[in-house]
Amino acid sequence: MKTLDLKTCAIHTMTNKPWSLAQCIDAYASAGVAGMSVWRNVIEPIGIAEASRLVKQSGLKIPALVRGGFFPALSDDVRAKAMFDNKTCIDEAAAIGADMVVLVVGAVVGMPLTEARKQVADGIAKLLPHAQANRVKLAIEPLHPMYAADRSCINRMKEARLVCEQLKSPWVGIACDAYHVWWDPDLESEIELAGKQNTLMAFHVCDWRPNTRDLLNDRGLMGEGAIDLKTIRRWVERAGFDGMIEVEIFSTEFWAMDQQAYLKKVCDAYLQHV
Amino acid sequence: MKTLDLKTCAIHTMTNKPWSLAQCIDAYASAGVAGMSVWRNVIEPIGIAEASRLVKQSGLKIPALVRGGFFPALSDDVRAKAMFDNKTCIDEAAAIGADMVVLVVGAVVGMPLTEARKQVADGIAKLLPHAQANRVKLAIEPLHPMYAADRSCINRMKEARLVCEQLKSPWVGIACDAYHVWWDPDLESEIELAGKQNTLMAFHVCDWRPNTRDLLNDRGLMGEGAIDLKTIRRWVERAGFDGMIEVEIFSTEFWAMDQQAYLKKVCDAYLQHV
Repeated sequence: MKTLDLKTCAIHTMTNKPWSLAQCIDAYASAGVAGMSVWRNVIEPIGIAEASRLVKQSGLKIPALVRGGFFPALSDDVRAKAMFDNKTCIDEAAAIGADMVVLVVGAVVGMPLTEARKQVADGIAKLLPHAQANRVKLAIEPLHPMYAADRSCINRMKEARLVCEQLKSPWVGIACDAYHVWWDPDLESEIELAGKQNTLMAFHVCDWRPNTRDLLNDRGLMGEGAIDLKTIRRWVERAGFDGMIEVEIFSTEFWAMDQQAYLKKVCDAYLQHV
Repeated sequence: MKTLDLKTCAIHTMTNKPWSLAQCIDAYASAGVAGMSVWRNVIEPIGIAEASRLVKQSGLKIPALVRGGFFPALSDDVRAKAMFDNKTCIDEAAAIGADMVVLVVGAVVGMPLTEARKQVADGIAKLLPHAQANRVKLAIEPLHPMYAADRSCINRMKEARLVCEQLKSPWVGIACDAYHVWWDPDLESEIELAGKQNTLMAFHVCDWRPNTRDLLNDRGLMGEGAIDLKTIRRWVERAGFDGMIEVEIFSTEFWAMDQQAYLKKVCDAYLQHV
C-alpha cells in the first residue's frame, strides 16, 4: 500500500468551520494540502464570482462542491424548489471548477423510505441533463442509518448502487464516506462493485468516536475511533479509485480549537492513519 | 389487522427506570398491562429470590430477562467472565420464569466486526447447553449501526440470521427491535425469513425521533417519530409471530416525568400507534 502525502489530500471547508473561504485557501495551501472541497456556506457571504476567483487563483484542486440533494418532498412545489437549488448548485460547482456535487439525498418523516428513494432517483434523473451540460458529476453519498428519518433515505452503498444502475449515466456515482458506511457488512463487496461499474467518485475520511456525544457534530480525527481506515482505503484503491481522499470532520469540540493548530492535527492524522 | 389491547403488551422495566421492580409490577398490573420484561438492574437491589417471588405472585407474563451478551473480548479471561455472567443471566431468567434472555452481543473498538461476530457465534454456542438445560431461549438483538463501535457487531437482521443458521438450535433466535432495524431495506424479507426459520422470538417497539438528541437515551413514544410501526407489526404477524409486543423506551426526558402519568401515555401510544 502506497504511503500517503498531502498531495492526495483534500479538506472540506466545513472541517474548519470558523474559517472563511479565503482563510481555508491560505491555510491549506500553506500546509501543502493539495485539494479542498467547498461547502456552500463559505460561498454565500462573498458570492460565487468572488469565490470562483479565489479558488482559481489558489491552485488548489476542487473535488467537490458540498452539497446538493434533498429530493423527496410531500408536494410538487417543494420538489420544484429543490430542483432549482440543485441546478444552482451545479452552476456553482462549474464556476469553481469542482469535479462533482455531493448529494445528500434527503428523507421525509412519515414518507416510506422506498417512496423517498423513488423520488430521489426521479430527481437525479431530472437533474442529469444540467449536470452533463456543465460537466459536473453527481455523487450520491449514502448517509449513516442514524440519518434515515430526516436527512437521507439512502443508508448503504447498495441503495446508491441501485440508483446508479437505474440511471446508467457516467455523470452519476457514489461518494463513499467511511463515517457513514464503515459498519456495513457488505462494504467491501459494494466498493468492489462500484469500481467495476465506474461509479466510485469520492472517498471521505474521519473517524467514529466510541461514545459519540452528538449525532451530527462529534466526528473524530482519523485514528481516534473505531474505523479501520487503512483497510477501507485498500478496498477503495483496489477498486481503481485514484481521486483525492477528502477529510470531512464536523466537530463542535474541534471547531472551538485554534484552527491553525487543529489543521496541523488533521494533516498529521491523515498521514498516519488513512 | 387485529386491534391491539394491553393483553398483548409487555413493558420493559427500563422504560420506567425510576421505579423498583415492585413499583413496576403494581403499576403495570393496575394498568391492565399483561406482561413485563425485566432488566437486571431492578433485580440487583433485592436479589433474585425476592425478585422471583414478586414476579411469580404478580401474575404478569415475562417474555424476557434483559440482558446478556457482550461476548467479544481481547482476552480469554474477559471472555470467560462474560460466559460466567451469561450463565448467571440464564439462571435468573429461569428463576423469574422468563421465556428468553435478550443478547446485546457486544463489540470491541479496534476489533474487526467480522472477528467480533465470529466470537459472538462461538460464545453463544458455548452458552447453548446451559440455556437448553434451563429451557431459556437466547434472542440475538441486532442493534442500530450507531452502536457498532462498542455495543454490538450485529447491526442488521441478516447478521443475526447468519448466526442462527450456523448454530441451528431451537434455543437461539432473534429479537427484532423496530428502533434498531426500521431503516433496513431488507427488513421485510428478513422478518419473513425469520418466520420461516422459527427464529422470530421478540418484537420490541418505541419510535425514532427526528433530531434525536442522544444516541442512547432519547427514544420516542410510539407514534411521535419516523417508524411505521403498524407496517412492521403486519410483517411480524404475517411471519407467524404471536408473542407479546414489548415496549422498550430509554428516555432521559420521560424518566424525569411523573412515572404514573407517563405509563398512561405509554399505554395510549401502544393502543394507538402499534
